[in-house]
Amino acid sequence: MPSPASPLKVAVLGFGTVGSSVARILVDRQPQGLVLTHIYNRNIARKKKDWVPSTVCWTEDIETILSSDADVIVELMGGLDPVAGWVERALASGKSVVTANKKLIATQGIALEKLARSKGAHLLYGAAVAGGIPVIPGLQQGLAGDQVLRIEGILNGTCNFILSKMEQGAEYADVLKEAQELGYAEADPTEDVDGFDARAKLVILSRLALRADLDPSEIPCRSIRAVSAIDFAYAKELDCTIRQISRAEIRGEDLASGDVLASVGPMLVPKASPLAWSHGTENTVLVGGKYGGDVVFSGHGAGGHPTAVAVVSDLISMAHGSRAVDLPSRKTALGGEFLLRHSIRFVVDDRPGIIAEIAQALAVEGINIHAIFQKPGFETSNLPFVVTVEPCTSSCLRRALDRIETMSCLLEKPFALQILEPEG
Amino acid sequence: MPSPASPLKVAVLGFGTVGSSVARILVDRQPQGLVLTHIYNRNIARKKKDWVPSTVCWTEDIETILSSDADVIVELMGGLDPVAGWVERALASGKSVVTANKKLIATQGIALEKLARSKGAHLLYGAAVAGGIPVIPGLQQGLAGDQVLRIEGILNGTCNFILSKMEQGAEYADVLKEAQELGYAEADPTEDVDGFDARAKLVILSRLALRADLDPSEIPCRSIRAVSAIDFAYAKELDCTIRQISRAEIRGEDLASGDVLASVGPMLVPKASPLAWSHGTENTVLVGGKYGGDVVFSGHGAGGHPTAVAVVSDLISMAHGSRAVDLPSRKTALGGEFLLRHSIRFVVDDRPGIIAEIAQALAVEGINIHAIFQKPGFETSNLPFVVTVEPCTSSCLRRALDRIETMSCLLEKPFALQILEPEG
Ligand SMILES: NC(=O)c1ccc[n+]([C@@H]2O[C@H](COP(=O)([O-])OP(=O)(O)OC[C@H]3O[C@@H](n4cnc5c(N)ncnc54)[C@H](OP(=O)(O)O)[C@@H]3O)[C@@H](O)[C@H]2O)c1
Ligand SMILES: NC(=O)c1ccc[n+]([C@@H]2O[C@H](COP(=O)([O-])OP(=O)(O)OC[C@H]3O[C@@H](n4cnc5c(N)ncnc54)[C@H](OP(=O)(O)O)[C@@H]3O)[C@@H](O)[C@H]2O)c1
Repeated sequence: MPSPASPLKVAVLGFGTVGSSVARILVDRQPQGLVLTHIYNRNIARKKKDWVPSTVCWTEDIETILSSDADVIVELMGGLDPVAGWVERALASGKSVVTANKKLIATQGIALEKLARSKGAHLLYGAAVAGGIPVIPGLQQGLAGDQVLRIEGILNGTCNFILSKMEQGAEYADVLKEAQELGYAEADPTEDVDGFDARAKLVILSRLALRADLDPSEIPCRSIRAVSAIDFAYAKELDCTIRQISRAEIRGEDLASGDVLASVGPMLVPKASPLAWSHGTENTVLVGGKYGGDVVFSGHGAGGHPTAVAVVSDLISMAHGSRAVDLPSRKTALGGEFLLRHSIRFVVDDRPGIIAEIAQALAVEGINIHAIFQKPGFETSNLPFVVTVEPCTSSCLRRALDRIETMSCLLEKPFALQILEPEG
Repeated sequence: MPSPASPLKVAVLGFGTVGSSVARILVDRQPQGLVLTHIYNRNIARKKKDWVPSTVCWTEDIETILSSDADVIVELMGGLDPVAGWVERALASGKSVVTANKKLIATQGIALEKLARSKGAHLLYGAAVAGGIPVIPGLQQGLAGDQVLRIEGILNGTCNFILSKMEQGAEYADVLKEAQELGYAEADPTEDVDGFDARAKLVILSRLALRADLDPSEIPCRSIRAVSAIDFAYAKELDCTIRQISRAEIRGEDLASGDVLASVGPMLVPKASPLAWSHGTENTVLVGGKYGGDVVFSGHGAGGHPTAVAVVSDLISMAHGSRAVDLPSRKTALGGEFLLRHSIRFVVDDRPGIIAEIAQALAVEGINIHAIFQKPGFETSNLPFVVTVEPCTSSCLRRALDRIETMSCLLEKPFALQILEPEG
C-alpha cells in the first residue's frame, strides 16, 4: 500500500499529447501514493494550463528536474537525443523512470534496465507498445508462466487507419492525406508506413514474450506505400483483408536452440483472423503460447488518453511497490525467413504467353503457382491480375520477380504480399 | 531478481486438471526462483506420476503441508470447504497463496487479502477469472490508471461452447450432452448454465475494475437452459448471435456516487461486437475505460494448461518480488436494473388478435413494440414469432409477460432475451 504520508513525487518531461494527458489524469484522479510535482518542456511559458495545481513547478531547465527531489521521471518527449542521456542521468541518481518511448526502449532498454537495477530504481514502459492496451503487463505478469512461441500484431495505428480506410475503397495517397489532417500521421510518414515504428515495438515484444533480444536493423520491413485499392479487391476474393503485420516466431520449441523469424509489413490477413478485425487506429496483439494457446489483446493503441492510462498505471504499480518482472532474455540473431504463401499483383499490357513466362520464371526458383485471379472490367492494355503461389521465402520470390520485371509487357513493378496463415 | 540460492518452495494442493498442469509446467520449464516441493491430494497413491522429481513430497495429510517449510501454497482443489479454512491457516502462518478458486475469492477474497497483508504474505488469483487470459494482471497493472466504467464478458467456457454450437443449428440438450462427454460440462451443469460460475467471476472483476464490492447473491442470473435453436434463427435476422454475457457498469462517472448495475445471462449480441466472436470454450472480456476506451482480451478461459499458465505466472511474479497492486474498493449495493431493448419469443396456436393483445399487455407497462419477426415454414397451430421492444427493465417486462402468460393461445412460456447495445 502506498503511504499517503510520503507519496511518490512525479516529474513529467514533455508536455505534449501524452504528457498533458498524464498530467490531466494525475490531477483529476489523484491516484493514491502519487503527486505531480514538476513539468518540464522547452519554452515552457506557452504550455501552462490553469487546471494544473499551483504547487506544480513548471520549468524549461532540465537541471531543475534532475537535481530535484522528484522520485519518478516520466519521459514523454520522444526520440533518442537528448532523452537517452537524461534518462540515464535520472536512473544513475536513483530516480525511477516511466516512459512511452519505444525507440529508446527498443535500442537501449536492456542497458537502462541494468542501470536501474544497480541503483535500486525502476524503469517501466508499459505505454511503449500498443498504448492503452496492457500487452506489456500482460506478458510480464500474466503470461510469464507460458512459453510464448509467436507474436503477431497490428502495432501501428497510422497504418491500420490507412489500410482499414483503403479496405472501404479509398486510394493510399488520399487516405494518407486524411490521416495527416486528422493528426494520425506525421508530415513525413516514413517511420509509420515503412514499418520502423512497428519494428521498434516488435523488438520490445520479442524480448518480453520470446525472451529474444533482436537487433531492430536485422528485421526486414516492407512498406505499405505500394498497397493500392485493387489489392483490396483481390484480397476480398481470397476472403482476406490487408493489414500491416509485425510478427516474430520461434521455430522449434526450444528457445535455447530455436531460430527466431521476424518481419514487419503489409500482409493478406484472413477475415476470420482477429488481426483482420481492428479498424481505425486500433491495435491488436496475438500471443501464441505453448501451454495457454492464443491470447488476443485489442484496443486503442495510440492517442493521448489511452497512452496516458498505461503511463499512469505504471506509476500506480510503482507507488504500490510492484516491480516489473525482469524476465531473462538473450541476444538472438534472426534465423532465416518465413516460408509463406504470397499473392503477386501484376499489371500488364496483355498478350498471349504472359502467364507461361511468369510461371517459368517462378519455376526456376522452385515456386509453384497456386491460383490466378483476374477481375473483369479492365482494358487488356492495362490489365491487373493476381497470382498466388505456394509457400516460399521472400528472397526467393524476389529473385523470380527481378527476372519477371524485365518483361516488356509489365506496366508496373509486380507487388507481392505475404499471406498470413491461420495457425494449426 | 529471484535468488537461485533460495528459491520459493511451492506446495500444490489438489492434483487434478489444473494442479497436474501446474506441476507439469514447473517441472518442464523450471522457472527461476521456484521449486516444487510438495503435492497434496486425498488418496494420493493413485495420483503419483513418474515425471515428478523424486525430491517432491507426495502427501494426503494436510498438516504435513501446513507445517512444512513451503513458502507458497497453490490451492487447486476448488470449493469452499475445507479449502477456505486451509487457505486461512496458510496465510495466518505467513505462507503466500496462489489460487484459481473463483468461489473462494468472490466470497472471501477481501478478508483473505487483508489477512495476507497483515502477515506480510501475498494472495494472488490471476487464474480465477478467464483462466489463461491475463485480465486480472491487465486490470491490476495495466489499466489501474484508467477509470473503468463498464465490463462485459464471456466468462464461462461451458456456456460459450454450448451457445456457439447452437449457433450452428444444434439444440440445447444435445450440445449439453456433448459438452458433458467432452468434459466441458459437469454432470450437474447448474453452476455453469444458470450463471453462478460467471457471477463469481463478475464479482471479482467488478472489484478490480469498478472498485465495487458486490454481493454475488444480489446479481440477477438468467439461465441459458431456455435458449433454443429457433432463438438463433431469429437472432440472425437481427444481425446478432446469443452469448452468456456477464456485465457490470457504473451509471454516472463518479464512482463514489454512481450506481452499479450488474447481471449475468444469455443476451442477443450484435455480430459486430467482439463478444460475438469467441467460439468453443473461449472467453472474452471487454473493459471500457473513461480515458482509454474499450480494451478487449480473449483466449482460452479454461482448461488445465491455460489455467496453469496463469497460476505459474502468479508464482513467477511472486518469485520476482512483484506484488498485486492493491486497489481500493468499497462495498456497493446494486443500483437498479439495466434499461435494455429485448426480444421476446412467443409460440402460439395462431388466431386473430394475438398481436393486439400482446401489444396491449406491454403497453400497460409502458413498453413499446419495436418490430415483429415471423419466419415462414411453421404450422399456424404451433407458430413461433419474435417481438422486439424498446428499452425497458427486466422486471417491468416480467410483469407484462406474467399477464401475457395467461393467454390461452400460448403454447410455451414466452422467452425474453436482453439485447446488448453497442457503445456510443
Ligand atoms: N501520441 C501517441 O499516441 C503515442 C502513443 C504511444 C507512445 N507515444 C510516445 O510518447 C512520447 C510522446 O509522444 P507525444 O505524442 O506526446 O509527442 P508530442 O505531442 O510531440 O509531445 C512531445 C513534447 O515534448 C516536448 N519536447 C520534444 N523534444 C524536446 C526537447 N528536445 N526539449 C524540450 N522539450 C521537448 C515537445 O515540445 P514542443 O511542443 O516544443 O515540440 C512536446 O511538448 C513519444 O515517445 C511517443 O513515441 C505516443
Ligand atoms: N479446469 C479448469 O479449466 C479451471 C479453470 C479456471 C479455474 N479452475 C479452478 O481451479 C480449481 C481446480 O479445478 P480442476 O479443474 O483442476 O478440478 P479437479 O480436476 O477436480 O481437481 C481437483 C483436485 O483436488 C482434489 N480434491 C478436491 N477436493 C478435495 C478434498 N476435499 N481433499 C483432498 N483433495 C481434494 C481432487 O481429488 P479427487 O481426484 O480425489 O477428486 C482433485 O485431484 C477450481 O477452483 C476451479 O474452479 C479450473
